[in-house]
Amino acid sequence: MSSSGTVRPVTVEPRDRWPARQFAALPDPFTLFDGEQLHGGRVAYETWGRLTPARDNAILLFTGLSPSAHAASSAVDPSEGWWEPVLGPGKAIDTNHWFVICVNSLGSCFGSCGPASADPRTGRRYGVDFPAITIEDIAAAGRAVLAALGISSLAVVAGASLGGMASLAFTALFPGLAKRLISVSGTDAASPFAIALRSVQREAVLTDPDWLQGQYPAGRNPRNGMRLARKIGTITYRSPVEWQQRYGRLPADTPPPNKFIGEFLVESYLENQAERFADAFDANCYLYLSRAMDRFDLARHGGVDQVAQKSRAESALIIGVETDMLFRIEEQARVAQAFARAGSRTQLVRVESASGHDAFLADTEPFEAAIRTFLTEHHQ
Amino acid sequence: MSSSGTVRPVTVEPRDRWPARQFAALPDPFTLFDGEQLHGGRVAYETWGRLTPARDNAILLFTGLSPSAHAASSAVDPSEGWWEPVLGPGKAIDTNHWFVICVNSLGSCFGSCGPASADPRTGRRYGVDFPAITIEDIAAAGRAVLAALGISSLAVVAGASLGGMASLAFTALFPGLAKRLISVSGTDAASPFAIALRSVQREAVLTDPDWLQGQYPAGRNPRNGMRLARKIGTITYRSPVEWQQRYGRLPADTPPPNKFIGEFLVESYLENQAERFADAFDANCYLYLSRAMDRFDLARHGGVDQVAQKSRAESALIIGVETDMLFRIEEQARVAQAFARAGSRTQLVRVESASGHDAFLADTEPFEAAIRTFLTEHHQ
Repeated sequence: MSSSGTVRPVTVEPRDRWPARQFAALPDPFTLFDGEQLHGGRVAYETWGRLTPARDNAILLFTGLSPSAHAASSAVDPSEGWWEPVLGPGKAIDTNHWFVICVNSLGSCFGSCGPASADPRTGRRYGVDFPAITIEDIAAAGRAVLAALGISSLAVVAGASLGGMASLAFTALFPGLAKRLISVSGTDAASPFAIALRSVQREAVLTDPDWLQGQYPAGRNPRNGMRLARKIGTITYRSPVEWQQRYGRLPADTPPPNKFIGEFLVESYLENQAERFADAFDANCYLYLSRAMDRFDLARHGGVDQVAQKSRAESALIIGVETDMLFRIEEQARVAQAFARAGSRTQLVRVESASGHDAFLADTEPFEAAIRTFLTEHHQ
Repeated sequence: MSSSGTVRPVTVEPRDRWPARQFAALPDPFTLFDGEQLHGGRVAYETWGRLTPARDNAILLFTGLSPSAHAASSAVDPSEGWWEPVLGPGKAIDTNHWFVICVNSLGSCFGSCGPASADPRTGRRYGVDFPAITIEDIAAAGRAVLAALGISSLAVVAGASLGGMASLAFTALFPGLAKRLISVSGTDAASPFAIALRSVQREAVLTDPDWLQGQYPAGRNPRNGMRLARKIGTITYRSPVEWQQRYGRLPADTPPPNKFIGEFLVESYLENQAERFADAFDANCYLYLSRAMDRFDLARHGGVDQVAQKSRAESALIIGVETDMLFRIEEQARVAQAFARAGSRTQLVRVESASGHDAFLADTEPFEAAIRTFLTEHHQ
């Protein structure tokens, strides 16, 4: 049976794992949206392309919950990025034209400070003593990177999933700073269904005895909890339609670990996803970022209509997927309608893909097409 | 934090908890569909109404995964049953006309033998040594109840959810025995999405250290695992649309147990469902029945078309819900088309309810209407 809770040490991150990664210091103290203060913080980021002398071609890109700032390969880091098909020379986000900055979210564990990094006041890992963060804080940390780069206005603020929320939070916090908005499979307010699904994923981690109230040793993630959380997450990132086509009732390609699970191919797929994630993302960082998503609600900024009006955005591209159960197409429509009402030239793209929420990663063609068209209209 | 894994003893079931419950012995040995043999088995059931002298007004009803045979109140047991609005004198399944038998599924823990009952050869609880059971075995155990009652033909075989599967398995195993079929939110083959969702629920139980490889003491369910499994299940039994209307982003009505969960009302709802279930259903029984659902596939009987043809069913009522993600409306349509092609007078009812899979319990009116019409046409 698989309840043994084997703990495997995480490989210490090699110094050259992220050769293109750069850092920006946060203001010290950095006052968080809910009032707490963060000291000695920093944000990791990567860039592609060149900033024009007029500094008017910058795109700021926010990520989903778990990726790093490595959105695409480059000369410095030729490894594949999380949005490789979309970002690069000649691609939809054409780095021959645009200067793109992708930030690792505040609270994550890929270079930005968060629960897995050391508290500079004590030298010890924050763990669950890290202050609660919000999507607004992730957006503000992105703003701090722009300040470090001497960029005071953006051609585009963009993001997908959590990053879609962050792009809207950025718009709410810094109206007028970005001329255009691209929100991919985001929302203006987390839905109760998405909250419920993330809540049970967090509970899977919290009830893993290896979580140790958040005090697990560095590199000793609560694996069973993280594995289960990822399996639940994976189910909700895709769609029933896709799995019917892709897995049907085919048997597993490996022997079942016990008599209650692992008999079907769809279970092998979940198992692979779980194993890839269990040690790859710090459990406390996961808890913090997941919770921040639940709490996101533009009502704290007067609502999506007011945010859209204040933004003075020239144009907005809102993309969603018909089969996405976490960030439903109705939510995309609500955001798009607000920007349209506010006078932004707005395009709502309803992607018909069986890949659900993950379509922007798994079925990129319609996203590439929409983003290419949107950005080509604005080439400098 | 909620990871303490507190074990609370289950209240010993009072002798009079199920005053209307009766038992039928299974043949000894009872050969299971996958070939193993069960010894000294029994099935619990309840009945309503009176069998006609011609013995031609019997309806056999199969339940979902977790209910007992107590589908409705009666003079002997006035407590509310799990399908109270649908079953009773003057109701859609009118017990003034019909003799209704509801069986507790083989493998469950409400009187029928299963992992929580004692192996008569050893006197000890079976636990995970209970043989693997299938939906076909649940159907065959229902057939054994009919035999005990001297009933050799059915006016109707009916069931919802797992019971919908069982009604189809019954039709496959005993063609011609039931004149009519009512399948509510069932399927002819579990989908990979439903398999995935049930698999993670079982894994939540398996990874709870209190599961003890299935050897937990009687009444000491692995609570954390069962709680988490029920939360995941509850999410999939309902729909995003319903929760948007019902909970929105309202705050919880009780203080959050920790800083990572319990802030929103939808989480309070999940918590209530989890607490009600954690001790109410034996964990091993849950594992067995959940797994049996995954394995169900009429392909083992030549496919739904062949089953429908052999059944010689006079008529079939197939009801499904547009928002059901576990037993999707496409699956209902597939079953209905097979019976229509086979020449049964077939009605497919697509219920437009926001209540998802649980609509047959939570939003019963459209089910009552469809079943009443279907059965009224056949009053003896």
